[in-house]
Amino acid sequence: MATITAVVAAVDSGMADEGIAPIENSLEGSVPETLDLLVHGPRPLSIRDEIVVPINHNLLVRPGMKTDDVKVIFVHPQTLGQCRGFIERCFPKATVEAALSNAAAVEEMMSREGSAAIGTRRAAEIYGAEILATGIQDRNPNVTRFIVLARYDHEPTGHDKTSIALAFAEADRPGQVVGALKEFSERNINLSKIESRPSKEKLGTYIFLIDVDGHRTDSPLAEALKRIEVNCSFFRVLGSYPRYRETAA
Amino acid sequence: MATITAVVAAVDSGMADEGIAPIENSLEGSVPETLDLLVHGPRPLSIRDEIVVPINHNLLVRPGMKTDDVKVIFVHPQTLGQCRGFIERCFPKATVEAALSNAAAVEEMMSREGSAAIGTRRAAEIYGAEILATGIQDRNPNVTRFIVLARYDHEPTGHDKTSIALAFAEADRPGQVVGALKEFSERNINLSKIESRPSKEKLGTYIFLIDVDGHRTDSPLAEALKRIEVNCSFFRVLGSYPRYRETAA
Repeated sequence: MATITAVVAAVDSGMADEGIAPIENSLEGSVPETLDLLVHGPRPLSIRDEIVVPINHNLLVRPGMKTDDVKVIFVHPQTLGQCRGFIERCFPKATVEAALSNAAAVEEMMSREGSAAIGTRRAAEIYGAEILATGIQDRNPNVTRFIVLARYDHEPTGHDKTSIALAFAEADRPGQVVGALKEFSERNINLSKIESRPSKEKLGTYIFLIDVDGHRTDSPLAEALKRIEVNCSFFRVLGSYPRYRETAA
Repeated sequence: MATITAVVAAVDSGMADEGIAPIENSLEGSVPETLDLLVHGPRPLSIRDEIVVPINHNLLVRPGMKTDDVKVIFVHPQTLGQCRGFIERCFPKATVEAALSNAAAVEEMMSREGSAAIGTRRAAEIYGAEILATGIQDRNPNVTRFIVLARYDHEPTGHDKTSIALAFAEADRPGQVVGALKEFSERNINLSKIESRPSKEKLGTYIFLIDVDGHRTDSPLAEALKRIEVNCSFFRVLGSYPRYRETAA
């Protein structure tokens, strides 16, 4: 699929059973498009699983091209954020041009003289590009967390995580955020993430995206959620799903 | 300046007394580059002021060009997020190409046959473009908040705001975030924003960016900050500055 919106539409229409979308990178942070689709999307889909994938960026060129001949670098803005140091150090004079995806960057590079692109090993294979440098991201580990979207979330497994989205009526919001978080901390429920997104109605009004440990059907969490919901102007459980665990390769 | 990094460098080097950078848009949310420069930047600058500006997007073309002839639209990704509905509704078949800034989008459009760009009225004047449509953002009001960066922050004015950044040692972070927020709520200090950015060290570890009402030298806030700081592995007051107030036009 060309865009995250298209992935969501494919699941929503039944064309696909599950869709995978990036939600967070360890260097660049959240992927706003995915967060907004979860909160503002036409019909709510559930998060059914999460996957954490190490990211390795490569400098790709047309076969035979030399480093000195690189005048333009095609790169997706999220990737640019992860490789800015490399570009400033090694290609201070090159022009950086934004591409709409990592794949699009490689495709454009292949059709433009004197250019390079930042992309994956797989893209190099697909488009017949040559890898000039590998592991060019500014910091390691560089990992991206993906979520699996489906019509229903996951049954309890005993090591789960639950994502919720909530908002408060504007008047007394600040105390209420603390009040909601206290419902978790008082029950020893671990909070693994809190993020705010604009409500899109007025500057300074937010929807909070919160990840906590446990399944929404586990009794302490179910109780906390019920208590929080009554104080919210908007409340949605985005899904409960197994917490990602790294497995030995 | 071509980039936000360059704005920061200009202030840092003394070339400029103050620099203005966008920090948050009411539709698209935070500007990650600005947040990261505040937290991870080489030398800390202070936030000295904030400005809120209404944003109006326009569809620009080369003079004489017709709507039907638009095959390609150049747009900055942040702007694309604000005008996605318009593009999907009015130009479902056009190819969208990312540009590194709104100005760059207009510049590229002027040199490419069959293209349009999304940009400001000012950019239309500078590059000699024609405005085909105006107010094409998906929602109104669409406003962007900018911060004024300087070497020192602002003296107290009686209606101030303070921005801080903090992080906790990983082990018992969740309870600690709630603990920190309680220091504010117990003193009736209004929290106007909480945002998390990746620590860039490990997925799932964050730096929290918090805006509260008051000046860092006001006694209840000063006390709360002192209490919070002792529990943090990273703590920085980004600055105290007058809260933006809309003035009648």
